[in-house]
Amino acid sequence: MQVYLNGSFLDHTEAKVSVVDRGFIFGDGVYEVTRVINGEPFREKEHLARLDKGLKALKINLETEVRESIPDIHREIIKRNDLLEGEASIYLQITRGAAWPRTHTFPEQPIKSTIFLSAASFEPHTELHKTGVDVITLSDIRWTRCNIKTVLLLPNTLAKQQAHEAGVNSALLIRDGVVTESPNANIFAVKDGALYTYPESNYILSGITRSVVLEIAEKLEIPVHFTPVREEEIFDLDELFFSGTTTDIQPVTVINGKNLGTGKPGPVVHAIQEEYGKLLYGK
Amino acid sequence: MQVYLNGSFLDHTEAKVSVVDRGFIFGDGVYEVTRVINGEPFREKEHLARLDKGLKALKINLETEVRESIPDIHREIIKRNDLLEGEASIYLQITRGAAWPRTHTFPEQPIKSTIFLSAASFEPHTELHKTGVDVITLSDIRWTRCNIKTVLLLPNTLAKQQAHEAGVNSALLIRDGVVTESPNANIFAVKDGALYTYPESNYILSGITRSVVLEIAEKLEIPVHFTPVREEEIFDLDELFFSGTTTDIQPVTVINGKNLGTGKPGPVVHAIQEEYGKLLYGK
Repeated sequence: MQVYLNGSFLDHTEAKVSVVDRGFIFGDGVYEVTRVINGEPFREKEHLARLDKGLKALKINLETEVRESIPDIHREIIKRNDLLEGEASIYLQITRGAAWPRTHTFPEQPIKSTIFLSAASFEPHTELHKTGVDVITLSDIRWTRCNIKTVLLLPNTLAKQQAHEAGVNSALLIRDGVVTESPNANIFAVKDGALYTYPESNYILSGITRSVVLEIAEKLEIPVHFTPVREEEIFDLDELFFSGTTTDIQPVTVINGKNLGTGKPGPVVHAIQEEYGKLLYGK
Repeated sequence: MQVYLNGSFLDHTEAKVSVVDRGFIFGDGVYEVTRVINGEPFREKEHLARLDKGLKALKINLETEVRESIPDIHREIIKRNDLLEGEASIYLQITRGAAWPRTHTFPEQPIKSTIFLSAASFEPHTELHKTGVDVITLSDIRWTRCNIKTVLLLPNTLAKQQAHEAGVNSALLIRDGVVTESPNANIFAVKDGALYTYPESNYILSGITRSVVLEIAEKLEIPVHFTPVREEEIFDLDELFFSGTTTDIQPVTVINGKNLGTGKPGPVVHAIQEEYGKLLYGK
């Protein structure tokens, strides 16, 4: 597999970063995952706008020339990996760069940020989109700047692993008594025909797919309340679903071993899945 | 500078890890910083015991043979960098290793963890230990497993940078209305001859230097209360100080631009500094 690292395309087995890269030492970096359909990145502008926001929040100075070349790198990496047809995803990570000696404060002398991209074929979770998934509730142990898409993902991986070991697909993360996100997706609830989702804040990522769901809700005239679901209200809901770049629109049907409603995906998630499919696949 | 990476000693400019190392992609790793005095690591057993705890908490399987060789690697890296005399520090980082493709859950097939060590000469902050330092209060935005010494240090670096940009040395992190830690040290308060410090919990690191301070307090018959300081009580305190491997015992004398008491280090921190110096330098 061909990846891109700091100006060069090379085999992924040869792509290496310094041990003193601040991404490796401090988690000092941001990332994006973008879906690609028949060679075309989906909602690319939105992903890159969010990337810019993250870089600004962390004061990482990506060279303008490099930043502007990202869409071209996207297309080149798609081509080099024979991903012009069918489904794929692109991973992009930017860190503050390598600095020696190790100091918490940003390097006094400007350093070159590290930029890494990879692309691989992708298989959507089509079956799970039909059946829905089971989840457990877990404490949201993440930091309180979840709105920045950083590589501080250890808590997310631990939650995902805990779900995996519990024999379920994913988790609902609970902070201060309300549902925030899954370890890798935003969450929407459905009650009496309306959507409920955690408001934009420090506690959730402003998901690109989440914003697409909001567009769809507007089109379908589904009311949206930016109100999080309280843990004790979960089983009063009609439906629950995840939204995310690789998750797509994913019904949640079983929580802590108990069916949500009938234990089957409901009509609202179906309607949103259908509209989402049209946007994603351009049909 | 000679560093150690996965079984080999090499120049730090040549030491590189895969772009898909989970340390780089997810912050999935732990670290230790150990002081070295005249070639001898200080409290080495305690550092390695904490390392073991962290590896266990994250279920990172460091090979037993590698784990057992760490004290030898410590000595070898000290020698190779001409650090047998004077002051030095060793940095040690272990991550879950490199895995492809990128998945949040732990790799299904066992992978080799990545182990990296570096050693460099170190200059203690002797002048600041005498004068004390100024700090600002900042919100503690870290995750809620601060007891594990992971490389999820971006919030710590942001706080340290914010302090730096405010023209001060460091910060008091505030969570839920109480002082937890500095971005890179534990905190002790002094009031009416007794010490106050945040209790062992998920919200602070169980510092090695912190445990040395507790030993010293016992020796000096200073009472210790495992009670955190509330933000609004800060200026009622007699003294405040940091403890940490590279921080040593560091008086805090100015907070948010206002003197704490006289604005000079007090008698309790002096007494603890003196005892700490004896232990550290074996005099």
